[in-house]
Amino acid sequence: MAAEAGPSTTPGEEMNGSGNLMDILDEPFPDVGTYEDFHTIDWLREKSRDTDRHRKITSKSKESICDFIKSLLDAWSGWLVMLLIGLLSGTLAGVIDLAVDWMTDLKEGVCLSVFWYSHEQCCWTSNETTYDDRDKCPQWQKWAELMTGSSEGAAAYVLNYFLYVLWALFFSFLAVSLVRVFAPYACGSGIPEIKTILSGFIIRGYLGKWTLLIKTVTLVLAVSSGLSLGKEGPLVHVACCCGNLFSSLFSKYSKNEGKRREVLSAAAAAGVSVAFGAPIGGVLFSLEEVSYYFPLKTLWRSFFAALVAAFTLRSINPFGNNRLVLFYVEYHTPWYMAELVPFVLLGVFGGLWGTLFIRANIAWCRRRKTTRLGRYPVLEVLVVAGLTALLAFPNPYTRRSTSQLISELFNDCGSLASSQLCDYVNDPNMTRPVDDIPDRPAGAGVYAALWQLALALVFKVVITIFTFGMKIPSGLFIPSMAVGAIAGRIVGIAVEQMAYHHHDWIIFRSWCRPGADCVTPGLYAMVGAAACLGGVTRMTVSLVVIMFELTGGLEYIVPLMAAAVTSKWVADAFGKEGIYEAHIQLNGYPFLDVKDEFTHRTLAADVMRPRRGEPPLAVLTREGTTVEDVEALINETDYNGFPVVVSRESERLVGFVQRRDLTLAIKTARQKQEGVVSGSVVYFSEEVPPLPASAPQPLKLRRILNLSPFTVTDHTPMETVVDIFRKLGLRQCLVTRSGRLLGIITKKDVLRHMAQMLNQDPDSIMFN
Amino acid sequence: MAAEAGPSTTPGEEMNGSGNLMDILDEPFPDVGTYEDFHTIDWLREKSRDTDRHRKITSKSKESICDFIKSLLDAWSGWLVMLLIGLLSGTLAGVIDLAVDWMTDLKEGVCLSVFWYSHEQCCWTSNETTYDDRDKCPQWQKWAELMTGSSEGAAAYVLNYFLYVLWALFFSFLAVSLVRVFAPYACGSGIPEIKTILSGFIIRGYLGKWTLLIKTVTLVLAVSSGLSLGKEGPLVHVACCCGNLFSSLFSKYSKNEGKRREVLSAAAAAGVSVAFGAPIGGVLFSLEEVSYYFPLKTLWRSFFAALVAAFTLRSINPFGNNRLVLFYVEYHTPWYMAELVPFVLLGVFGGLWGTLFIRANIAWCRRRKTTRLGRYPVLEVLVVAGLTALLAFPNPYTRRSTSQLISELFNDCGSLASSQLCDYVNDPNMTRPVDDIPDRPAGAGVYAALWQLALALVFKVVITIFTFGMKIPSGLFIPSMAVGAIAGRIVGIAVEQMAYHHHDWIIFRSWCRPGADCVTPGLYAMVGAAACLGGVTRMTVSLVVIMFELTGGLEYIVPLMAAAVTSKWVADAFGKEGIYEAHIQLNGYPFLDVKDEFTHRTLAADVMRPRRGEPPLAVLTREGTTVEDVEALINETDYNGFPVVVSRESERLVGFVQRRDLTLAIKTARQKQEGVVSGSVVYFSEEVPPLPASAPQPLKLRRILNLSPFTVTDHTPMETVVDIFRKLGLRQCLVTRSGRLLGIITKKDVLRHMAQMLNQDPDSIMFN
Repeated sequence: MAAEAGPSTTPGEEMNGSGNLMDILDEPFPDVGTYEDFHTIDWLREKSRDTDRHRKITSKSKESICDFIKSLLDAWSGWLVMLLIGLLSGTLAGVIDLAVDWMTDLKEGVCLSVFWYSHEQCCWTSNETTYDDRDKCPQWQKWAELMTGSSEGAAAYVLNYFLYVLWALFFSFLAVSLVRVFAPYACGSGIPEIKTILSGFIIRGYLGKWTLLIKTVTLVLAVSSGLSLGKEGPLVHVACCCGNLFSSLFSKYSKNEGKRREVLSAAAAAGVSVAFGAPIGGVLFSLEEVSYYFPLKTLWRSFFAALVAAFTLRSINPFGNNRLVLFYVEYHTPWYMAELVPFVLLGVFGGLWGTLFIRANIAWCRRRKTTRLGRYPVLEVLVVAGLTALLAFPNPYTRRSTSQLISELFNDCGSLASSQLCDYVNDPNMTRPVDDIPDRPAGAGVYAALWQLALALVFKVVITIFTFGMKIPSGLFIPSMAVGAIAGRIVGIAVEQMAYHHHDWIIFRSWCRPGADCVTPGLYAMVGAAACLGGVTRMTVSLVVIMFELTGGLEYIVPLMAAAVTSKWVADAFGKEGIYEAHIQLNGYPFLDVKDEFTHRTLAADVMRPRRGEPPLAVLTREGTTVEDVEALINETDYNGFPVVVSRESERLVGFVQRRDLTLAIKTARQKQEGVVSGSVVYFSEEVPPLPASAPQPLKLRRILNLSPFTVTDHTPMETVVDIFRKLGLRQCLVTRSGRLLGIITKKDVLRHMAQMLNQDPDSIMFN
Repeated sequence: MAAEAGPSTTPGEEMNGSGNLMDILDEPFPDVGTYEDFHTIDWLREKSRDTDRHRKITSKSKESICDFIKSLLDAWSGWLVMLLIGLLSGTLAGVIDLAVDWMTDLKEGVCLSVFWYSHEQCCWTSNETTYDDRDKCPQWQKWAELMTGSSEGAAAYVLNYFLYVLWALFFSFLAVSLVRVFAPYACGSGIPEIKTILSGFIIRGYLGKWTLLIKTVTLVLAVSSGLSLGKEGPLVHVACCCGNLFSSLFSKYSKNEGKRREVLSAAAAAGVSVAFGAPIGGVLFSLEEVSYYFPLKTLWRSFFAALVAAFTLRSINPFGNNRLVLFYVEYHTPWYMAELVPFVLLGVFGGLWGTLFIRANIAWCRRRKTTRLGRYPVLEVLVVAGLTALLAFPNPYTRRSTSQLISELFNDCGSLASSQLCDYVNDPNMTRPVDDIPDRPAGAGVYAALWQLALALVFKVVITIFTFGMKIPSGLFIPSMAVGAIAGRIVGIAVEQMAYHHHDWIIFRSWCRPGADCVTPGLYAMVGAAACLGGVTRMTVSLVVIMFELTGGLEYIVPLMAAAVTSKWVADAFGKEGIYEAHIQLNGYPFLDVKDEFTHRTLAADVMRPRRGEPPLAVLTREGTTVEDVEALINETDYNGFPVVVSRESERLVGFVQRRDLTLAIKTARQKQEGVVSGSVVYFSEEVPPLPASAPQPLKLRRILNLSPFTVTDHTPMETVVDIFRKLGLRQCLVTRSGRLLGIITKKDVLRHMAQMLNQDPDSIMFN
């Protein structure tokens, strides 16, 4: 002890000493340094283990050419994993797109020539027709036409209706059953769990092969069933499963939970990249929304993975148009400053929708968790799917798939457009180039469409609340965007008609001459979609960038930005959490959000345990405890680790030992090391004093002792402690005063304290 | 002391106690908690001060409507600052663009009708000519024409040459004199210093009003003088000066060095946004290249500032084409997989150029610093400017401004192009739409242009090395891009001619039919520019995104990415640092790079001071030291702070006190507090024991004591310590073992240790 007292000891020798000490000790037992399910990882330890591994490989690489090649392979394995992730997730996304197209159309009819063709593919390949005559394509037959030979009349309508509902029930039943039986983790969007996993939590099997397979299949079924859900969120989960799959091929990633999370961050970027065809947006989504630890290296690799994924998808070309993006739009008219007013109003609508959706959905999910409702997931899905199909079929805007709907709402009315939405009254005297159609009065079709859209809006708003969170794969990007796009298009047409009929009003006079093309309703739909998506998820930059990549024009960034920021402000005014954070909280995961700011004036001493009145902290001493005592301590408590002190009197901290490591070490020692019995004394110190011959063999455990546990003083403000936990990814932190150990703060304690300060239930945080 | 021993003390009361303690003490003296010039800030302290401020305003806001409005204003001031930064930096960029255009043309001639018009503006406004006849526009006269009446002949050429050189000398003399006399900090690109400032260093005046003004003016002069430098880097400095200017208007930012840096990060994004017209690229540049602490809030605000700046610039419309971007390009041909080979070769070239440039430039700058050369900055600038002008004039590709050159090299040869570079042999039998010109054999003009370009390449490579680092504002984005664009265009034309003449070769056969438009030399120029810029700065994602925003097509991301990544790998193989890091190191700034990985196996004990053989650590005790002793300690040492321990025997740490605060406190106390004399005892403890009546008044200094100093154990691996310093932005960290204070590690110690491990001179790090 005297040698330890001052700075007079020689740090250099000390280090070499501990280095040699490592070598003469046994090999590490298996599983030391791994984590249990539903536990938080220690980022610092993972990082330091990776550096060790790297150091070993580098020093070895100078020995032989073989080792040199191995070290090169190791250095490049990161890029290789990215390449593989990009290829697989791009391929899966392409397959899913094709399958969804086919199965969605299967609800209405079938292609006679090639039965696995979707409506569009079927009619493209038949040379007799052009795209315009798509509905008259003879190869494609609706079910009623095929079965009864007639496609007209009430009977045919009823038969089609009946089969539509039946298919929807069949698909959704299949989806929910597969999820129930094979991979319960495949349900939901997966983004809340991925956020939690990326922040350092372990959920075994959540990103497994089985989940990947079942999620891919059931995602197709769920989307095809016509339920109000999208495939974009689940695609992120699918891409992360790919990431996990490939990272298990390389020991660099499979054996290090920290490095594995870098791969997963990049995989999330690839997922969004293929979901929207927006690689830059995907990277920013991963950065802004999903990731926790995002070093620059991951930024570059994410970008690479996102690009590979996007180009793989493009070469599969599921949309048949050589476009990368999900909704390709091109507008020909600029926007005017005065239009910012409706854009901001759409932002307000988006914020309100976000608040409503989050509150209602969380209330409903909580009810599902706590009441009998949760016991019948299959029935729930069948009821919702049946209702959705029943209500959706009569309205042409809800009958088709939601992405088709959004695509139509986004698009400008070119002269070719045969949609009801473009049924304007044309001025026969005017001939103009295709691109530049002046504002025209709306025809009967537009008014009919407006009514149908309004009904579709109400329907989507209500049914989405009940759909998200059911036991099937379900994303909410597409339903949210649909709600916004419908609202936006309605507002857009209203503004357009106002501008046409009242172009002498002051607000229009300055920018909208009669006969000019002033208002683009499609742009309003896009702005509305961005606003609603922003309200629900609270994304801003990544959202705008995704939308920017869809249009490819910097022009429209300002409207989108205005709507996204308004929507975020409005929604934040009612509650700071986005839907993913709300679901994380609902599930009680230990997620320390980077966005939350902790501004309360509490100190570490207020949060640490033991509190006043509680029994003193369970500690081990550096020497003198017997194996029996340690085992008793492990059995009596359920702490994840124990501080080791010099002596119970001085309470000076030596290190920290993990419960899991301690249990394993004693078990291994009892099995393999001769003479270790219950009476053996456990030593955490470097030197074991000479023992009398009669004493049992001592057990040296310095190797599993963490000699650099993280400490703060009891006077440290909690905001600093929160910051440290967040930035360094700690699991626990010891509290000292003047060199004496006072207590311990775990991540769970921090989260519970934060919940308490926000007047929430601290017991909702269930894991550490 | 007994009350402190265990967890039995009541943390709640303790907190309230210290809260009350604050109130009964005096007001804080001025300057407590500020920093000295060339010192590092303490991020944790700044953050905690901001939280305090925020808490105060929030609690006050409930008291009256006025306070509520104040709190709202405070909450919105961040966005307001961003708006102002965007407006001012956009305006300045526009003014600089206009002035540079005019003054660059002034070297060749003058507009007769309106003398402050540039060549292009002059000939646009004269209605007699179309753009094509620009060179024959009568309003614009070259100097020789104006003075002698004749624009032909050797005499006119010599006169023009002479005046060109004269103007260049005049502009550069003016620039360097203004910088010398008024604002020495206005020289260089400013990005290395901004990186250092953003990482938490203080350089007073570097972002001041005076620097802003002089930098703006001299930037115009320097660019107009024709020196091989660009305005993009300095624009980031200008934008950061704007950021600093506006943040000084709001106490939230002016009084908190941490918050101020958030504003500066966003300002850097706005700077790049206006420099290239690429708002998203600007934000990513700030994130990838410049910033140190970049929370999500800053991401949103940066994006807003970048957008505002870009749109302000667009409404000024300096390029007269309503385009946002500096180099607008549109290509009509896709690229083919086989072309990846030349693209990767361009990447290799870029990497080699980056390595060569960094090594040569740093060697030259070091020579300037250490030899007599540094004493004559004005002469140096004049010589380089004169040489540049002399050598540049005869070659048409170097005579014009570098951005015009890059723009021409990037562009595809449409049928309208009258450039020498587009002098292909046309097939008279072929009539095709303008967009789709097949590959043609090169004409004499192209071959002449190739020779001139090759000479320009050599000239630019050499002269840029000597230009960057002189005492004038100088950016290297544009020169680097020019080098790459020239090389790329040469390679592009070579490949094009090869594909035309040998389209039966295997490598071409599969994708290049005769008569097709296979190869776009402009794309090669762009890829080359990206590669060279990447090699010099080591940007990847932001570089690709900036280039993507210039073209607006996702199509060309893969070639750009391939070149950027190759260039980075090649350059990294020769040395990990980019040009900015190299200049930071040259200047000895304490910059802890986020990108460097520390992988050595050293411990905190190896780095901490005092080392073996050095005198023990200078500490203060909690009680018992006299004012005299403290003053003696301050005078004898130059440490920035002192640990406070319970007693010299136990060496148990209580807190840390800053030298600056200690000096100020004693000075204030001696002046204002009665009875405080040299013999007074200094107390850092909470309670002062009753003193005999004869003893002088004690001095209580607990208020300036930091009770939560950061500690690590001596066994902590240095990689963890580096990580902690980096992520938490520490200035120093105390080292303990078993609760005893052993030593201290400062940021300087960490940096010196890192330099030592890389076999660099540790004494090159000069500041803390």
